[in-house]
Amino acid sequence: MATSNLARTLPRPGGRSARVQEAVHRATRELAAEHGREAITVPMIAARAGVTPSTIYRRWGDLAELLADVSVERMRPEGEPADTGSLRGDLLAWAEQYNEEMSSQPGRGMLRDVLSAQSPDDRPSCRCASYVAMQIGVLLERAQARGEAAPAVEQLMDALVAPLLFRLLFTPAPATTDEIAGWIDASLAHAAQPA
Amino acid sequence: MATSNLARTLPRPGGRSARVQEAVHRATRELAAEHGREAITVPMIAARAGVTPSTIYRRWGDLAELLADVSVERMRPEGEPADTGSLRGDLLAWAEQYNEEMSSQPGRGMLRDVLSAQSPDDRPSCRCASYVAMQIGVLLERAQARGEAAPAVEQLMDALVAPLLFRLLFTPAPATTDEIAGWIDASLAHAAQPA
Repeated sequence: MATSNLARTLPRPGGRSARVQEAVHRATRELAAEHGREAITVPMIAARAGVTPSTIYRRWGDLAELLADVSVERMRPEGEPADTGSLRGDLLAWAEQYNEEMSSQPGRGMLRDVLSAQSPDDRPSCRCASYVAMQIGVLLERAQARGEAAPAVEQLMDALVAPLLFRLLFTPAPATTDEIAGWIDASLAHAAQPA
Repeated sequence: MATSNLARTLPRPGGRSARVQEAVHRATRELAAEHGREAITVPMIAARAGVTPSTIYRRWGDLAELLADVSVERMRPEGEPADTGSLRGDLLAWAEQYNEEMSSQPGRGMLRDVLSAQSPDDRPSCRCASYVAMQIGVLLERAQARGEAAPAVEQLMDALVAPLLFRLLFTPAPATTDEIAGWIDASLAHAAQPA
């Protein structure tokens, strides 16, 4: 439960700063939907959001950073992952949905935005992976509460999330349901073995 | 051997087309080294390469595509991976070197370039993964010639290459040597088991 509360209450900047962020994010999403991500510029976004371009440059650095920030925000999980009654079922349901979302046109666009940003620290891609780790953490806590043997989050990141993203980013086709099930079964068999 | 010959003889366009590609690639590498990747533009590259900007747009589409193409070319393996006498040793040596190269500043820049390109087909990231698969294929053929049990290339892509790249792209720190060795050992144990 601690993990899922964390996922819902990540700090957001307050007050004026939060309003600027919201206006700029909204303007970016609207303009990207209207004109396509390749056609939008910082001055266009600034005009729509009612801020100066320098406000955007000061806060985000450049357009790639802003696009990445907007995309990470859209990847923030909206609720608890489905409870199917078993860890295997929960992982399969979560991973299939994640794979489906990320292999869609908008999902691929978000991944590209997130990976195109330069930011040396607080990389948007790391925030995106931490959202995934938090969702998986919820499933593992649920499994422990049921008394099921559960692998570590890191094990599932390496053995399930990593190949799933690798297929999306580096191969022509996303992972199949059978492959996803195979990765989950291997992780669960690993967790069931005495160390 | 077939795989390693393939790696060395991937088709390159011939004649005038090859000379244009080489001039544009060289101009891009030089200008990126002189001014940084963020400061270069298609007209700058065209002027240095002695071609018109429209030649570049026609052939590569946009700057992101060109940068990705140049980076993939730099990821093309230059020779056979080291022969240490065992598959475990070969995989470890290869993976450690790959991890070291890709976690460097230029390596991270290449990965970003390759993943930032839009190209829906013949994605640069897929070419980059196929170079990796070819190198691993050489190690597996070598192991089979020695009579060692060897996993499939796909198994190593999912269980070794995928988490290695996941750590580079989505987490603050690259994989450690111990983690790499653990992924290799798990894959080899998997291959040694009867199916």
